[in-house]
Amino acid sequence: MKRTETTAGYDQKQIAIATICSHSSLQIFHGARQEGFRTIGICTRERQKLYESFPLASPDRLIVVDRFADLLDEEVQEDLLRENAVVIPHGSFVEYVGADEILARFRVPTYGNKQVLPWESDRRKQHQWLIAAGIAVPRIYPTLDAIDGPVIAKLSGAKGGRGLVHARNRQEIAKRIDPALIDQYTLQEYIFGTRYYPHYFYSQIRSRLEMLGIDRRDETNIDEIYRYHDLIDRPPTYVVVGNRPVVVRESLLGGLFDYGEGLVAASQRLFAPGLFGPFCLETVCREDMKFVAFEVSARIVAGTNLYPVGSPYSCYYFNGEMSTGRRIAIEIREAVEQGRLEEIVT
Amino acid sequence: MKRTETTAGYDQKQIAIATICSHSSLQIFHGARQEGFRTIGICTRERQKLYESFPLASPDRLIVVDRFADLLDEEVQEDLLRENAVVIPHGSFVEYVGADEILARFRVPTYGNKQVLPWESDRRKQHQWLIAAGIAVPRIYPTLDAIDGPVIAKLSGAKGGRGLVHARNRQEIAKRIDPALIDQYTLQEYIFGTRYYPHYFYSQIRSRLEMLGIDRRDETNIDEIYRYHDLIDRPPTYVVVGNRPVVVRESLLGGLFDYGEGLVAASQRLFAPGLFGPFCLETVCREDMKFVAFEVSARIVAGTNLYPVGSPYSCYYFNGEMSTGRRIAIEIREAVEQGRLEEIVT
Amino acid sequence: MKRTETTAGYDQKQIAIATICSHSSLQIFHGARQEGFRTIGICTRERQKLYESFPLASPDRLIVVDRFADLLDEEVQEDLLRENAVVIPHGSFVEYVGADEILARFRVPTYGNKQVLPWESDRRKQHQWLIAAGIAVPRIYPTLDAIDGPVIAKLSGAKGGRGLVHARNRQEIAKRIDPALIDQYTLQEYIFGTRYYPHYFYSQIRSRLEMLGIDRRDETNIDEIYRYHDLIDRPPTYVVVGNRPVVVRESLLGGLFDYGEGLVAASQRLFAPGLFGPFCLETVCREDMKFVAFEVSARIVAGTNLYPVGSPYSCYYFNGEMSTGRRIAIEIREAVEQGRLEEIVT
Repeated sequence: MKRTETTAGYDQKQIAIATICSHSSLQIFHGARQEGFRTIGICTRERQKLYESFPLASPDRLIVVDRFADLLDEEVQEDLLRENAVVIPHGSFVEYVGADEILARFRVPTYGNKQVLPWESDRRKQHQWLIAAGIAVPRIYPTLDAIDGPVIAKLSGAKGGRGLVHARNRQEIAKRIDPALIDQYTLQEYIFGTRYYPHYFYSQIRSRLEMLGIDRRDETNIDEIYRYHDLIDRPPTYVVVGNRPVVVRESLLGGLFDYGEGLVAASQRLFAPGLFGPFCLETVCREDMKFVAFEVSARIVAGTNLYPVGSPYSCYYFNGEMSTGRRIAIEIREAVEQGRLEEIVT
Repeated sequence: MKRTETTAGYDQKQIAIATICSHSSLQIFHGARQEGFRTIGICTRERQKLYESFPLASPDRLIVVDRFADLLDEEVQEDLLRENAVVIPHGSFVEYVGADEILARFRVPTYGNKQVLPWESDRRKQHQWLIAAGIAVPRIYPTLDAIDGPVIAKLSGAKGGRGLVHARNRQEIAKRIDPALIDQYTLQEYIFGTRYYPHYFYSQIRSRLEMLGIDRRDETNIDEIYRYHDLIDRPPTYVVVGNRPVVVRESLLGGLFDYGEGLVAASQRLFAPGLFGPFCLETVCREDMKFVAFEVSARIVAGTNLYPVGSPYSCYYFNGEMSTGRRIAIEIREAVEQGRLEEIVT
Repeated sequence: MKRTETTAGYDQKQIAIATICSHSSLQIFHGARQEGFRTIGICTRERQKLYESFPLASPDRLIVVDRFADLLDEEVQEDLLRENAVVIPHGSFVEYVGADEILARFRVPTYGNKQVLPWESDRRKQHQWLIAAGIAVPRIYPTLDAIDGPVIAKLSGAKGGRGLVHARNRQEIAKRIDPALIDQYTLQEYIFGTRYYPHYFYSQIRSRLEMLGIDRRDETNIDEIYRYHDLIDRPPTYVVVGNRPVVVRESLLGGLFDYGEGLVAASQRLFAPGLFGPFCLETVCREDMKFVAFEVSARIVAGTNLYPVGSPYSCYYFNGEMSTGRRIAIEIREAVEQGRLEEIVT
C-alpha cells in the first residue's frame, strides 16, 4: 500500500496539510498552523468568503473548485502533489468524493489507511470488525419474522439521519416501512440508554491510544421533540446538525479504552497495518452501564469541533491547547522528523 | 446621534467600563480588566457581597443603588461621567431601566447604537428587520382563523418565558388562550427542530463579523419535562434559567454567517450606523437544515456566560482567552487608540 | 479529632497526594502534579494499565490492591504513612471503603472533616442540616396517606440511580412500590424544574467560598427516554453515567452562594470545624426560579470532571487552568506553607 513513488518526490521539509473546506476543516487548519504547517483548503466558490474569514483558521491557500469531487481532477491532484500536500480525510471528504473513487483514482498522499474504507462502508464487514474487536453490538434481525422486541429500521444509503423508523415490535414496524423496500432496511435491536461518542486517536508514531474527547450528537428534530411531541404527527427525524459536550463516569473509561484498543488490534489482523489516526465509536450506555456500539467512524468526526483548544480528556495527554486537528499535525510532524511519513500515509 | 459634547469631556486615557451587576456583568468586568480598563459596577445592596467576592471579576468600584433604575438619577449619571465611564448595556440593563427611559434620559456614553432599541422592542419592526436581512422567520397568523397548523401563542409583555401556549391547531389554541386577551397574543407558526443561539460580534473598528460562540437556552420546566411529563397536568413553562454549550455542523456555519451579515447590512439601511457590537439570533434548525429565526437580541446575551475564557469558535479569531466581554473591551480600546470612540458609543 | 500524632511524623516538605483510582482521580492527580506534589494511586489490577496511560494524570506511584477496600489493610496504611500521604476522599472512596470503616479504622491523614460522614449518609441528619442551612428542600411524606401530589419514592440503599419510582399521586405510587418494602422508601414530593449541580469549594486557609463549576448529571435511560418513550414499557432508570456542562443565569448565582454559605455555617454549628473543601448540592430550579435541594455531597463530585482545566466560573477566581482537583492541592500546599496542615486533615 505504500506510495513510495509519491512521497518520495516530496520535500518533507515543506509538507502542506490540505483538506476539503467542510466538516472539521477549521480545526484541522487551526491545528496544522499551530504546528507550523502551511495549509491548503479545497473550497467551493460559495464557501470561499467564509473560509477566508478566520484569522487563525483560514488556510494559507485556497484551491477553488466548482464541486468538491473536482479534487479528483488531474490538475488539482498535480497541484497538491507540487505543494507536498498531505490530505486529511474527514467525513465530508468521503461523502463528497466517494470511497470507491478515492481508492481508485486519488493519488495524493492521504493521512490514514485507505484500506479501512471498504471495512467501514460495508455494514456486514463493519459488523464483523466490531465483533472481532470484542465490542458489544445490537442484534441484527435477518428478517421481519425474527424481530422479538423494540426495533429500529435503517434504510441503506439514507443520508443525514433520514430513513430511520422505530417501532415496539414486529407488527408495528411492518406497518411503518414499505414492504417493497424491506431488503434495503437493516433491522436492528433498539438499545435503550444514553449516547456517547468517544473520540480516539491511535498514534502509529508513539504506539499509543489516546482519548481526546467525547460528544453527543445533536439531531433535529428528535433531540428537542420532547418540547412539542404533542403537536407533531409525523415520525421523528435524526438529522445531525450539531454536537454537545459530555464526559463519562471515570469508572466507565476503562471499558471505552478496551473498545478502542480492540478496534485497533482487530484492524491490524483484518487489514494491516490497520486503523490509526483519529476514529470514533457511536455508543449507547445501557442502564447496566454497558456500552453497545452501533458504528465506527474511521477518521476525524465532527464532534471533535467542540474541542478546538482541548477537551476534558486531552489535557491528560498534552499541556496547552490540543485538538484532534492539531494531534494529526503533531503525528505528521513527528513522522517527518523520524523519517517515517510513509508509515502513516496511503 | 453622536454625543460629542459628552465624550469630548472625557479623558480617553482613563476610560472606565461600567455596567449593571447582573446578566453578563462578571464576564464584562473580567474581560475589561484583562484589557487593562478600570471597571465600575452599578449594584444593589443585596448583591454587593456577591459582586465583591470574585478576585478576577469584581469591579474596581461599586456604585451601590437601591434599585437598578436609579442609574438614571442625575447624581449617578454625573458620577459615571466624572469616571469617564462607557456603559455596556446588557439584557438586564434594558429590562431594569427601560428602553424609553434609556433613550430619553440616559446621557452616559453607552457602547452600541441606541437606535436599535425601538427596532428590537417592537415585534413588527423587528419582523421587518429580519425579513429585510434575508432571514427565514416563522409565519405570523393575523387571526385565529388564519391558523392552519401547529401554533405557539406568545403573550405581549409576558416576562421570563411565561405566557407561552402551544397547540396543534386552531381549535385547540382557541380553547387554551383567553379570548378576551386575543389581541395581546402573537400567533406564530410552530417550527419543529433544535434550537441554536449564535453569538455574533460586529466590529465597527475592524469592519468584520465574528462568531464568538453558540449556546442553547436551558428553560424550566420544558427542558426536563421529558423526565416527568406523565406526572404533570399544567402546561409547560419556558423560564430561561441557564445555558448549555453546543456547536453546529461546519457546513451550516455559512448560513449562520449570512444571517449575521444580513442583519448588519439591513440595520445600516434601516437605522444608520446600524447594528454593531455583540448580538444574537434565536434560531431553530429544521430537519431540512434550514435555520428559522424568532428573535434578534441586539446586545450581549447571557449565553455568552458559557465562554468567559473562549468558545469553540472564538479561538479561530483570537489567541488565548476571549469572551464577548473582553471583545467589547478590545473594541473600545482600539477605538480610543484610533481616536474613533465617538463611532461606537451613543 | 486532630491526628497530631500522625501528621506530626510527616515530612511536610514531602507530602504526597493519594487517592483511589476511580471517580475523579485523574483530575486529582493532574491537579496535584500541577502544584508540584508527588502522587499515589491506590489501584486494582484490572485498572492498572488505564491509570498508567495518561502522561499528565497518571500517579507517580501505583499501589496495586485486589480490591479498593484493601486500603484499610495495615500494610497499605503504613505504606501511605511512610509516603507522607494525604488522602483525598471522593465518592468512590466512601462507596468502596465504607463510611463506618473509614471512621473506625482509617488512620492516614485525609483531607476534609470526617465528621461530615454521618451527617451525609443518614437521610434524616442530612435533611436537618439542609434546613438549618436555610435551603429549600422537598417535602418528605411520612406515610403513603400523607401524599397529596406527584411523588418520587427512593429505596434506601439502592445504588446507582436504581430504586426510584415516581407517580402522580397516592393511588398510583401505592401500586408501583412493593407494600412490604414501604418502610425502606423515602416518599419525596416531586419537584418540577431543571437540574443544576453547583460545585463549591470552601477554603479554610483563605476563609472563602468559591463556586468552581456547575454540571447536570447524565442519567441512563431517563435522560434520553424522550427518544424512545413510545417503545418502552418498563419504568425509567436513573443510573448516573456522565455529566454535562451548564451555567445558570447570573441573577441566580446569589441564591446558590447563599445556599453554599448556609451549608458551611450550619455545619460549623452542627459538627465543628464543619464542612470545608469541595462539596456539591443537587438542586432543581423550579419555574419560580427557586432552587430546591435534594442532597448534599460533602466532597469532590464527578461533575467536576468536566472542568480539569477550568470552568466558566473558576476563571473568576484563578488565572490559568484550575480544576477542583488542583484547588485541593493548592489548599494543601498553602496549609503546609502556613503550618496549618492539621486544620484541614482528619
